[in-house]
Amino acid sequence: ENNFFLIAGPCVVESETLVMDIAKKVFEICKRLQIPYTFKASYRKANRTSGDSFTGIGDEEAMQLLKKVKEKFSIPVTTDIHTAEEAAVAAQYVDVLQIPAFLCRQTDLLLAAARTGKIVNVKKGQFVSGEAMKFASNKIIKAGNDKVILTERGNSFGYTDLIVDYRNIPIMKNHGVPVVMDCTHSLQQPNQSSGVTGGNPQMIETVAKAAIATGADGLFIETHPDPSCALSDGANMLKLDLLEELLKKLIAVRKAVL
Amino acid sequence: ENNFFLIAGPCVVESETLVMDIAKKVFEICKRLQIPYTFKASYRKANRTSGDSFTGIGDEEAMQLLKKVKEKFSIPVTTDIHTAEEAAVAAQYVDVLQIPAFLCRQTDLLLAAARTGKIVNVKKGQFVSGEAMKFASNKIIKAGNDKVILTERGNSFGYTDLIVDYRNIPIMKNHGVPVVMDCTHSLQQPNQSSGVTGGNPQMIETVAKAAIATGADGLFIETHPDPSCALSDGANMLKLDLLEELLKKLIAVRKAVL
Amino acid sequence: ENNFFLIAGPCVVESETLVMDIAKKVFEICKRLQIPYTFKASYRKANRTSGDSFTGIGDEEAMQLLKKVKEKFSIPVTTDIHTAEEAAVAAQYVDVLQIPAFLCRQTDLLLAAARTGKIVNVKKGQFVSGEAMKFASNKIIKAGNDKVILTERGNSFGYTDLIVDYRNIPIMKNHGVPVVMDCTHSLQQPNQSSGVTGGNPQMIETVAKAAIATGADGLFIETHPDPSCALSDGANMLKLDLLEELLKKLIAVRKAVL
Amino acid sequence: ENNFFLIAGPCVVESETLVMDIAKKVFEICKRLQIPYTFKASYRKANRTSGDSFTGIGDEEAMQLLKKVKEKFSIPVTTDIHTAEEAAVAAQYVDVLQIPAFLCRQTDLLLAAARTGKIVNVKKGQFVSGEAMKFASNKIIKAGNDKVILTERGNSFGYTDLIVDYRNIPIMKNHGVPVVMDCTHSLQQPNQSSGVTGGNPQMIETVAKAAIATGADGLFIETHPDPSCALSDGANMLKLDLLEELLKKLIAVRKAVL
Repeated sequence: ENNFFLIAGPCVVESETLVMDIAKKVFEICKRLQIPYTFKASYRKANRTSGDSFTGIGDEEAMQLLKKVKEKFSIPVTTDIHTAEEAAVAAQYVDVLQIPAFLCRQTDLLLAAARTGKIVNVKKGQFVSGEAMKFASNKIIKAGNDKVILTERGNSFGYTDLIVDYRNIPIMKNHGVPVVMDCTHSLQQPNQSSGVTGGNPQMIETVAKAAIATGADGLFIETHPDPSCALSDGANMLKLDLLEELLKKLIAVRKAVL
Repeated sequence: ENNFFLIAGPCVVESETLVMDIAKKVFEICKRLQIPYTFKASYRKANRTSGDSFTGIGDEEAMQLLKKVKEKFSIPVTTDIHTAEEAAVAAQYVDVLQIPAFLCRQTDLLLAAARTGKIVNVKKGQFVSGEAMKFASNKIIKAGNDKVILTERGNSFGYTDLIVDYRNIPIMKNHGVPVVMDCTHSLQQPNQSSGVTGGNPQMIETVAKAAIATGADGLFIETHPDPSCALSDGANMLKLDLLEELLKKLIAVRKAVL
Repeated sequence: ENNFFLIAGPCVVESETLVMDIAKKVFEICKRLQIPYTFKASYRKANRTSGDSFTGIGDEEAMQLLKKVKEKFSIPVTTDIHTAEEAAVAAQYVDVLQIPAFLCRQTDLLLAAARTGKIVNVKKGQFVSGEAMKFASNKIIKAGNDKVILTERGNSFGYTDLIVDYRNIPIMKNHGVPVVMDCTHSLQQPNQSSGVTGGNPQMIETVAKAAIATGADGLFIETHPDPSCALSDGANMLKLDLLEELLKKLIAVRKAVL
Repeated sequence: ENNFFLIAGPCVVESETLVMDIAKKVFEICKRLQIPYTFKASYRKANRTSGDSFTGIGDEEAMQLLKKVKEKFSIPVTTDIHTAEEAAVAAQYVDVLQIPAFLCRQTDLLLAAARTGKIVNVKKGQFVSGEAMKFASNKIIKAGNDKVILTERGNSFGYTDLIVDYRNIPIMKNHGVPVVMDCTHSLQQPNQSSGVTGGNPQMIETVAKAAIATGADGLFIETHPDPSCALSDGANMLKLDLLEELLKKLIAVRKAVL
């Protein structure tokens, strides 16, 4: 089948209950809609704006929960890593290693991820062009791993806003790899004086529709039953209740452009 | 019917033959596809980067050709105006008065256009937010004319590039007016050292699909049988041969989002 | 002598009392500091964000006040014009015709200003590079008037902010004309949801020092005895009380870079 | 004394000869001009755009050369680190640990650097505001180390350019720490299709003068006897021959603003 795939979950592993609950609900939605699903949660947040923000429940415990999701629902899982050392560790638990946008040019990190043999999903830096992401992709491919995904997540537009440049979807597809649209982080509003990144979740549908219309192969959506209570990135996550309706609309757009 | 509408034509009135030829071809395509069509051409180019560039064949002669298109094909026609004085003159020939992006904050121009009673299509400045365009719209409405259209055409992104922020489509629709995507000028590459604005026409399909997917009511596309020979904006116009296939794809997207 | 020159005054002609008061105070300061002084005030605001904002006391009355300043203090005066028709009218009253940033690419306006034989001060558009301003300058010079000034006033940086790119000072000086830094408008914060442009006047000293250090020939500063009561651009004007101290600091920087 | 300080050296440790030669020349210039001098060179380049670019001569060998400079000239030396693990290692050789701009939000890295007790110089990300850098500074201070320096190096402006926002100099000084202007990396032209970052070294003087005029406490300048042969960042380094004249001009500006 020709549907887009979905990478979704909470921003961070908050607790076993939350992780299993979200995984179950999204799994069932994706089964109904025939969308290939990869569960995502960070096991640790390494680049919070403020040093006071929540960073995780403990690396080992969080990784074990990711593995539990993987086994229970027989779906791939993914998390983001921040240093070369973490690559081999995380690879024992997850199927896809995600490289954070700020780190997309850290060669050692890309190479360590590549050498695990896992799929490597590189988020495009807020300061990088779609064209230049071929250099990130090539670093991984030259290390012997051609399982690369590139994810668009918006470019800096002034200090407190991001704009998604949809020209990057066909440009990055042209690098010969699947391209994902991160529909939630691309709506972040960084550099707030509070030290807590803002967001604009009512625009998720707009971002996602434009991405599917312009040929994105997959979508990345952070979701939470109650974003206002989330321990990280609550300002831009999609309320879980809204996911199924959104995905139905996107499937219609997908069919129109195939 | 629920199709999007199209505003299309050459950038500038180059000659009677060219104008009538393009109008006829686009008219026939739109008839086949049931797309409401408004013919567009500038009667004069008032803001070329370089003083040496072509500016027109003569105002009166160009306006007469717009009227001829209107009468021959029984379609509305539009052109852009640059001063308050031009509003009443152009209103004798055309159905829609277009306000250039650089001039979208010139109050006298907006009011003069409003007072003609014609539809006023205001292009969003490269330095203006979708939200702030409500002030442009309100100037016209308060002058007693509620026939306003707002057109997105990209925002400055560095000196030599523009990015389209698709959040502006729903934001400007929320002002209660039809919203158009300018699919060709939004791909301009300004501030070239040659003094001739560059472009990126292979991205027109990407820009247009994202616009329709995010709810644009209409599209603006400059087209020419041979853009490489066009006397203005050749670098970003769509080759006329490619228009029908493009519109068919966009109709499919439109149906998916209605 | 080798001092920088100053273009200063209130944003708009609010009243005779205000105009004469500001002119007198700035005139005396500049006399003490040996700074060549040109008085500036708009006779009409043509591009307010919101249609409800103050636009002027009447064109003729405002122009007469500019002339009165010119005669009383024997100093040049300047105002901004918005259409080709205004050029010849304003030229009867003022010594320098200022072209607003949004209009810096309107060829008819530049040519009409050029043909008055007055000095033409073109503000660089928020969407234009310093390099591309040579095309604006050349339009005027080719019309037979080589008395051109170019003014930097910042580039769009996101929707609600501007950044001054000081590389443009030497780049525009390289076009062979005097270059002015507009120290107040470059601190505007456009596209506010209120419809009233914001500002950041505590940064005027920073903007001005960098400009003088990088070789600006002149400064443009809007000033008012009580910016909080000003009828236009109050958010970014310099409080008149602060002007003399600021200029003294800038003279020290100027001497260091000559 | 009240002079600014200088952090300077080649981009990367290329060879013993080169390192010692540059250190000697800059040391002598700074001694003549009474400028406190810190030698800088990267022992490894961790984020080259392209995987094919030169990354170093070997970490241990490069660090030893830094130490040799330190001992020979009795001056502090600095290098940049990329992971928490590198902090303690590098701290054995250098006096100042530099955090790269892309990594300025990596909490583990900032904390590890803080815990060495060395001075920590955090480069402001191309996507970060001067205001938000207080969160980076606070992470270090809360870890018990108040020896923080913040370095401005420009913000993304379109894909292929950076602009320095000089408002960030007083804003970051207001965080209570010394502020440095990186006069060479702020002139980078990233995202070139070649995979090699471009530059604009003829603008170094402009960038540096504006920084000193607006209150920067120190300057960071990469320099090389022959930038065209440099193994990294050759496009934006200052030719070593030009350094002394430049510094003399900057001292004059410094004196004017004290």
